[in-house]
Amino acid sequence: MTPPTTPYLLTPGPLTTSPETKAAMLNDWGSWDDDFNQVTADVRAQLLAMADAADSEFACVPMQGSGTFAVESALACAVAPHGKALVLMNGAYGKRAAQLLHMMGRRYVTLDKGDYLPPQPDEVDALLHQDPEISAVFLVHCETSSGILNPLEAIAEVVHAHGKTLIVDAMSSFGGVPLSLSKTPIDVLISSANKCIEGVPGFGFVIIRRELLDAGEGRAHSLSLDLHAQWAYMERTGQWRFTPPTHTVVAFQAALAQHRAEGGVAGRCARYTQNRDALVAGMRALGFATLLEDRWLSPIITTFLSPDDPAFAFRDFYAALKARGFLIYPGKLTEVDSFRIGCIGQLDVAVIDTLLLAIQDALSEMGVSISPHLSTHLSPQAWSA
Amino acid sequence: MTPPTTPYLLTPGPLTTSPETKAAMLNDWGSWDDDFNQVTADVRAQLLAMADAADSEFACVPMQGSGTFAVESALACAVAPHGKALVLMNGAYGKRAAQLLHMMGRRYVTLDKGDYLPPQPDEVDALLHQDPEISAVFLVHCETSSGILNPLEAIAEVVHAHGKTLIVDAMSSFGGVPLSLSKTPIDVLISSANKCIEGVPGFGFVIIRRELLDAGEGRAHSLSLDLHAQWAYMERTGQWRFTPPTHTVVAFQAALAQHRAEGGVAGRCARYTQNRDALVAGMRALGFATLLEDRWLSPIITTFLSPDDPAFAFRDFYAALKARGFLIYPGKLTEVDSFRIGCIGQLDVAVIDTLLLAIQDALSEMGVSISPHLSTHLSPQAWSA
Ligand SMILES: Cc1ncc(COP(=O)(O)O)c(C=O)c1O
Ligand SMILES: Cc1ncc(COP(=O)(O)O)c(C=O)c1O
Repeated sequence: MTPPTTPYLLTPGPLTTSPETKAAMLNDWGSWDDDFNQVTADVRAQLLAMADAADSEFACVPMQGSGTFAVESALACAVAPHGKALVLMNGAYGKRAAQLLHMMGRRYVTLDKGDYLPPQPDEVDALLHQDPEISAVFLVHCETSSGILNPLEAIAEVVHAHGKTLIVDAMSSFGGVPLSLSKTPIDVLISSANKCIEGVPGFGFVIIRRELLDAGEGRAHSLSLDLHAQWAYMERTGQWRFTPPTHTVVAFQAALAQHRAEGGVAGRCARYTQNRDALVAGMRALGFATLLEDRWLSPIITTFLSPDDPAFAFRDFYAALKARGFLIYPGKLTEVDSFRIGCIGQLDVAVIDTLLLAIQDALSEMGVSISPHLSTHLSPQAWSA
Repeated sequence: MTPPTTPYLLTPGPLTTSPETKAAMLNDWGSWDDDFNQVTADVRAQLLAMADAADSEFACVPMQGSGTFAVESALACAVAPHGKALVLMNGAYGKRAAQLLHMMGRRYVTLDKGDYLPPQPDEVDALLHQDPEISAVFLVHCETSSGILNPLEAIAEVVHAHGKTLIVDAMSSFGGVPLSLSKTPIDVLISSANKCIEGVPGFGFVIIRRELLDAGEGRAHSLSLDLHAQWAYMERTGQWRFTPPTHTVVAFQAALAQHRAEGGVAGRCARYTQNRDALVAGMRALGFATLLEDRWLSPIITTFLSPDDPAFAFRDFYAALKARGFLIYPGKLTEVDSFRIGCIGQLDVAVIDTLLLAIQDALSEMGVSISPHLSTHLSPQAWSA
C-alpha cells in the first residue's frame, strides 16, 4: 500500500481509506436521479448479502448522520413504546444506548460490567428469567471503548431462546468480523460507512427484520431519524427521504467493491487480524501490556495500558507519533490510564512495523522506560468466564 | 468553467461543485485531531462572519445529516416546550417544519398560503396580536418548492416588534442572497453545506442567539439532534460530539474559500442572478411561463409551468435533458403541473445558454409546441400585496 501524504489513522474510524474510495467522490450526483438511486439500491443489497441476511426477512435502511444517529433510529423503531430493553454495557457505546433510550422515554434496565468485562450469556439468561417484561436486548459487538469482542453468538442464542428481540451495535465490527444473520439469531444490526467497510463518514445503516420495521411505523420520536419512514420512502421512490450525502454513498460503493476484491469479510478479517497480531506482539516486545487477555482482543482496536513512567504523557506521545505520520487514539476507560491503537483501514503489517519503530523512537525521545510489572494484564483473574 | 464529465445539476442541491471542492476530499482526517478541529473552528467562524452575526451574540453549531436534521435540532432547541410556534407556510419546507414540531410534541399554529403565495407582514402582525401565546415564528426564506423569495426583512421587523423569536430556514438562500443578522432581527438561521456555499451534502448548521442556545439545554427530544449538547461539547473539546463527516467538512472549507474569492455573498448573488435572468428570458423566449411574477423570483431556483401540449411529459423531458448533460428537477406544487430549474452551483451564463439550446432541442425531439396562452403568469391578481 502506498503511504498517504496525510498521517495514517490508527483509530476506530474515520480511518485511512484507499485512494480509489476517495477518488469516487470526484463526481457530483443528483440525489433525485436514477443513476444515484441505483447506487443506493446496490449498496443496500450488498450490505444484506454481507450480513448473510435473506432479503425476504430483512431490510437494509441507510440513515444520514454519524453511527449514533443510526443507533438512535434503530432503537426508536425496534423498542416498542411499552416494551423494555435490557442494555448490556461494558463501555461507552453500551452506555450511549442507555442514554438514547432515556432521551426517547423508553423503559430499560442495564447490566453494567464496568470498563471492559464482557457480559456473559448466563447473566443475560438470569436477567431474562427474572424480568419477563424485558422485550429487547441491546449488545455492542466490538465495544470500541476497550476493543473487546463481546460473546455475541452465545448471547444471541440465549436471547433467542427467550423469544426476545436482539439489537446489536456492530458499528466497529461489521464487515471486519464474520457474522451471519442466517446462523446467529439477530434481529437488528447497526453499523456505519466509515468502519470496517472502509468508507468515509456521513451515514450509518440498519439491517432489520421486516416485521420489526413494520411494527415501527409511526413510533419514531424524530422526523429525521424515523427509520420506518426512511425505508417506506426509499421502497416507494428509490430515493432517500431527505438529501443523502451523495459523495459519501458513492465512495461507499467503491469501498464495497474493494471489500469484495479482498475476499469479503473473511479476507478483511485476516488482514486486520495480522495487523493486530503484529501490533500486540510488537508492543509487548516494547514492554507494553494489553488491557485484555488475548482471547478477548478484537481485530479492530487494542487498548494498551499507559506506562507508569512519569515521563509518559499521552499528549506528548500522541504528538510524537503524529510527527512520525501516525494518529492514535486516547483511551476511553474511566479507571485506568490507557491509549488505543486501531488495526482497521488501509493498513497492513508493513505499516504496523513502521508504527512500532516510530513508537520506539517516540519513547526514547520522551525518555520513557517501561517497567516490567506492567507487562502483564490487568487483573486476569477477573476473566474466569 | 470547464464542463464536468457528469451532468450539470440544475437543482437546489446537491449541486455541481467545483473540482477544487471535490479534490479537498482526497485526504483522510482524524476526527479527534487538532488539524481537523481547526477546520471546524474556521468553518464556524466564517459562517458567523457571512451572516454578519456578532460572535458575542450568536454561535454557529454544525449538525451531521441533511438540512432537515439541522432544522429539527434548531426547532427542538429554540421552541420552548411550553411555547407555541407560528409556522408560515407556502410550500413543502414550511409544511415540513410543522411536521417536525408535531413529531416533537410542540404546540404550533400555521398560516398556510398554499402552493406559492407569500406570507405578508400584516398577516403575521394580525396573528401575533390575536394570539399572544405565540412565542416563536418560523419562516422559510427561499421556499425552494416554488423558488419564491419570501419577504423576510419585513416579517422580521414585525416579529421583532412583538418581541418574539424568529426562526428562519435559509437552507437554499444563505450565502447566495444577502442577509445580515446585525441589520435584520433574526434569532435562528438554518442552512446546509450543499446549497449556495456550494459544498457537498453531509451536514447542516444553525446560527443561533447564544441566550436561546442556553435556554435550549436539556430540551432536546433526541440525543443525536441535541443542538445545545453539540455546541457545549464543541466549545469544550473543539470536536464534534459524534463522528463528523470529515471529508464533507474539509470540502466545505474549500468551498468557503472559493465563495470569498468570488466576492462573498454579493459576488455569488450576482452570478446566480445573471444565471436566473438568462434562464428566465431564454425560457420565456421559448414560450414557457414562470409560476411567479418577476418580483418574487429568487436567484436560486425558478418554477416553470409545464406546457399543456399532451406531447410534454416531465419524465421524457427530464430524460432528454439528461441525455444532453443536464439534470433538472420535478415540480413540488400540488395544484399545477410544473418543473424547476436551479441557478445555483458551478454554473454561469454560458452553461445556461447551452441548457437553453438543449431544451429547445429536447422539445422539438419530443414534438412539443408551446401554446401562447401559457406565456403569462398564473393568476397575477393574487399577488396584490
Ligand atoms: C461500537 C460503536 N458504537 C457506536 C459508535 C458511534 O458512532 P459515531 O461516532 O459515528 O456516532 C461507535 C464509534 O466509534 C462505535 O465504535
Ligand atoms: C428551504 C429548504 N428547507 C429545508 C430543506 C431540506 O434539506 P434536506 O433535503 O437537506 O434535508 C431544503 C432542501 O432543499 C430546502 O430547500
